[in-house]
Amino acid sequence: MSHGKQFTLYTHLGGPNGWKVAFLLSELGFTYESIYLDFNKQEQKSPEFLKLNPNGRIPAIIDHLNNDFVLWESNAILLYLVERYDKEHKFSAVTDAEKAFQNQWLFFQASGQGPYFGQYFWFTFYHPEKVRSAVERYKKETERVLSVLNDVLSKQEWLVGNKVTIADISFISWNNGAFAAILGPEFPIAEKFPSVYKWHNALISRPAIKSVLDEKAALSK
Amino acid sequence: MSHGKQFTLYTHLGGPNGWKVAFLLSELGFTYESIYLDFNKQEQKSPEFLKLNPNGRIPAIIDHLNNDFVLWESNAILLYLVERYDKEHKFSAVTDAEKAFQNQWLFFQASGQGPYFGQYFWFTFYHPEKVRSAVERYKKETERVLSVLNDVLSKQEWLVGNKVTIADISFISWNNGAFAAILGPEFPIAEKFPSVYKWHNALISRPAIKSVLDEKAALSK
Repeated sequence: MSHGKQFTLYTHLGGPNGWKVAFLLSELGFTYESIYLDFNKQEQKSPEFLKLNPNGRIPAIIDHLNNDFVLWESNAILLYLVERYDKEHKFSAVTDAEKAFQNQWLFFQASGQGPYFGQYFWFTFYHPEKVRSAVERYKKETERVLSVLNDVLSKQEWLVGNKVTIADISFISWNNGAFAAILGPEFPIAEKFPSVYKWHNALISRPAIKSVLDEKAALSK
Repeated sequence: MSHGKQFTLYTHLGGPNGWKVAFLLSELGFTYESIYLDFNKQEQKSPEFLKLNPNGRIPAIIDHLNNDFVLWESNAILLYLVERYDKEHKFSAVTDAEKAFQNQWLFFQASGQGPYFGQYFWFTFYHPEKVRSAVERYKKETERVLSVLNDVLSKQEWLVGNKVTIADISFISWNNGAFAAILGPEFPIAEKFPSVYKWHNALISRPAIKSVLDEKAALSK
């Protein structure tokens, strides 16, 4: 790569999962070049990109510090980055038990928050017909996921190990999307899920994460 | 626990994700007591079970070999079991690169195969109204996931490290469900996805996995 940065991040402006990786790269202080794929041109299904990621989705990274190692699936990338580069465990679990809990929350994010919030988005904005029962289904599941998080976060500040880890970071993007768009600004998030609200605001106020969100906002104008 | 076995597995006869854990416990030669929760009685939402898993879903395990350690999210459980008990890496990746790929496929299973196959099931059998466009959406995504797997498995026998790992094991249950029920026995799986078909049959023919599937079949009668 000629950009001279430490990582290449294949991502998308509107998709949530690339931003997760950007948040962590920013927290770890790495330089990275974001390549925003144009889904209207189906760039994520181009032969060139499918060589990197046969799943044809974002994100994928190339790690130029590690012989151009290629990886996809956002939460697998978060784990790879902390395993390899977060030796002081600034953003990752330390003990075996904490590592197990960190994985537990990462999989809950990947199999619970992501798909349900995503389908809620789909049936609200993109599905070719209006299907009220499908929108209702995913609204209910989205609120259920938030209630699970809220219960846990009413008893502890962070998901794992009394500090910010990749488990917390993995939830930021879809929560942002839900609060801003699908649940909508009228949804009483602070009243219904106060612990989630506090946690989410603490995360997005972190300078390294805020700088990425500011970049996203600037690009979205 | 008075059952005297090494693990307690909270699971469900019809749900796919508990069986993943049973497959691996069987391969590793552990004894376990399966507790089948009755979803009709909402046992997965009982205060007793929510203390173990605030998400109110199966599976969850109690590891009696490790001070009754509790964990939920099926793929996090698979990782925990191999990290702790598969020191010879019989069913798990060895190198850092292979571990990253193992995670990649586990997250693809959790965020791709599971949710899409699951929603296909939902809209085919359980949704209160027939929504053809939703069924079509998830049928298409199910076939897309199978095509990604088929492409990769046409070039290699197993997903990671030239051997059966938890990455492969994680896909068995939903593939079984898809081939038997949602895609249906008439679907030409062997013709359309020959590499997936071969891989899946090799997995379900393994004695430790077959014995669990036989137990499931006996319980389903």
